[in-house]
Amino acid sequence: MPDKKVIEDFFRSLQDKICAGLEKADGKATFKEDLWERPEGGGGRTRVIQDGAIFEKGGVNFSSVHGPCPEFLKQEAGIPVNENIPFLATGLSLVIHPNHPFVPIIHMNVRYFEAGNIWWFGGGIDLTPHYIDVGEAKFFHQHLKKVCDTHSANYYPDFKKWADEYFFIKHRNETRGIGGIFFDRLSGNDMFTKEQRFAFVKAVGESFLTAYLPLVENNRAKSFTEDNKQWQLLRRGRYAEFNLVYDRGTKFGLVTNGRAESILMSLPPLAKWEYNHIPLPNSLENSTLRLLNTINTWEV
Amino acid sequence: MPDKKVIEDFFRSLQDKICAGLEKADGKATFKEDLWERPEGGGGRTRVIQDGAIFEKGGVNFSSVHGPCPEFLKQEAGIPVNENIPFLATGLSLVIHPNHPFVPIIHMNVRYFEAGNIWWFGGGIDLTPHYIDVGEAKFFHQHLKKVCDTHSANYYPDFKKWADEYFFIKHRNETRGIGGIFFDRLSGNDMFTKEQRFAFVKAVGESFLTAYLPLVENNRAKSFTEDNKQWQLLRRGRYAEFNLVYDRGTKFGLVTNGRAESILMSLPPLAKWEYNHIPLPNSLENSTLRLLNTINTWEV
Repeated sequence: MPDKKVIEDFFRSLQDKICAGLEKADGKATFKEDLWERPEGGGGRTRVIQDGAIFEKGGVNFSSVHGPCPEFLKQEAGIPVNENIPFLATGLSLVIHPNHPFVPIIHMNVRYFEAGNIWWFGGGIDLTPHYIDVGEAKFFHQHLKKVCDTHSANYYPDFKKWADEYFFIKHRNETRGIGGIFFDRLSGNDMFTKEQRFAFVKAVGESFLTAYLPLVENNRAKSFTEDNKQWQLLRRGRYAEFNLVYDRGTKFGLVTNGRAESILMSLPPLAKWEYNHIPLPNSLENSTLRLLNTINTWEV
Repeated sequence: MPDKKVIEDFFRSLQDKICAGLEKADGKATFKEDLWERPEGGGGRTRVIQDGAIFEKGGVNFSSVHGPCPEFLKQEAGIPVNENIPFLATGLSLVIHPNHPFVPIIHMNVRYFEAGNIWWFGGGIDLTPHYIDVGEAKFFHQHLKKVCDTHSANYYPDFKKWADEYFFIKHRNETRGIGGIFFDRLSGNDMFTKEQRFAFVKAVGESFLTAYLPLVENNRAKSFTEDNKQWQLLRRGRYAEFNLVYDRGTKFGLVTNGRAESILMSLPPLAKWEYNHIPLPNSLENSTLRLLNTINTWEV
């Protein structure tokens, strides 16, 4: 049974590996690190890259917080209010905003929670292209499907559906991007041991660079116009809307007085809102928008 | 006793008056109008100005919606669930984002609600300068105080405090701007008749142009640097954070499936997020930030 120390160490070394891979791909900017401590116990390593050759703004955060379990977490975990129990929450969370409109935004999160006998894993990885390239969307989903299928035949279909439901901007009737996988409260049961759940979460974390970097390399040399750039800014506005209105991690962080700069590193470097922007009928922008208005099956 | 028709007509003609005043001040752009209807009854006139000589993006919205009172509004008004009762909600709401970093953002809202015997007025007006000029902050508050004092000696102190509490970005420990006045559920009681409440709300609405236009005229010809512009974009990021995370009107609109483009016209045309931006020690940006970190008494 993997100890919490082992899990925490995995997330910490995953942060190192991912930051090194992204720095190498960028070739210009490097991550700046901020260490922070939580007064009640634990802390984190916020790492931010800015103004890179390709990554305009991105954060890869590791955190591990512990101490007496706060009331709202007890409630969530079904722990009686009068029980005093320690908790641990550790994980890695990242968002990358590229400067190039044809390079997609990416988000990943892998995390572990325990309090007493209760434990679970959660996380996911999803892609938000400013322009949807169907071939690339398929590549991304097939990649995730392969990672999932090694661990359970149900994982990909179940977690793809969960991502489609979660990464949805209700007031726009738009998906945030092309989705990916999302999962929460993966604990032990008749079918899965803790080792097996952890092995899956590890595989998801380790699949990040191979899922994302090909999409960076495919697109970074493409030329683009000022119109492409403007569309990118509008899509980033939608990204900000999702994160500030719906994202549970963001809400959770803000409500629990988390470190605002670490939580909001997910926000885009620059975003635009234009009243009632409607793309031209036969434009790339319009076809992207139509793809975002439906739930698509990308893996086939 | 002012009829709902009279109140609705006042808000509608106030929209005309304010749009005309803002167009005249801008001198270049004009408002574009979108009429919309609510399937259950009523609708609105959304008016948006974009890319003006001074107003980069702004909306002045009139709406009047009615029909059977929705459940959540019954709850809010304390009306029994099984009672079928018609409601009316009408008002004017505006947000203006100037292109000039020394011209402040302004927001105003005046509204009326009734269902059966229950009625109330709500609203407010508040200023968000990118750079705080203490003299202008005092001018703005003194102006509002004068409007309030004619109607009740308690209005300004009470509603100023309410605005300070409401327009607060908790996760940043910052006020959104320099505040103003905010009030809600002003109904009839021993001290105030409906005529008197309406007279106050009318005075607030009619004070808008004289409160805001001097601040536009004072600053529009000032020269500014690229640094000033960047700071403006960062402050607009904060504005977007407030509106998407805390603003009740925005939440209410999004949750009730309102017209997203009308609700989110309050968002800035362009906004920026930079990780952990800290202004230089003796800069104008730093003194503005320090003023936003405290609740100030501006009127004296």
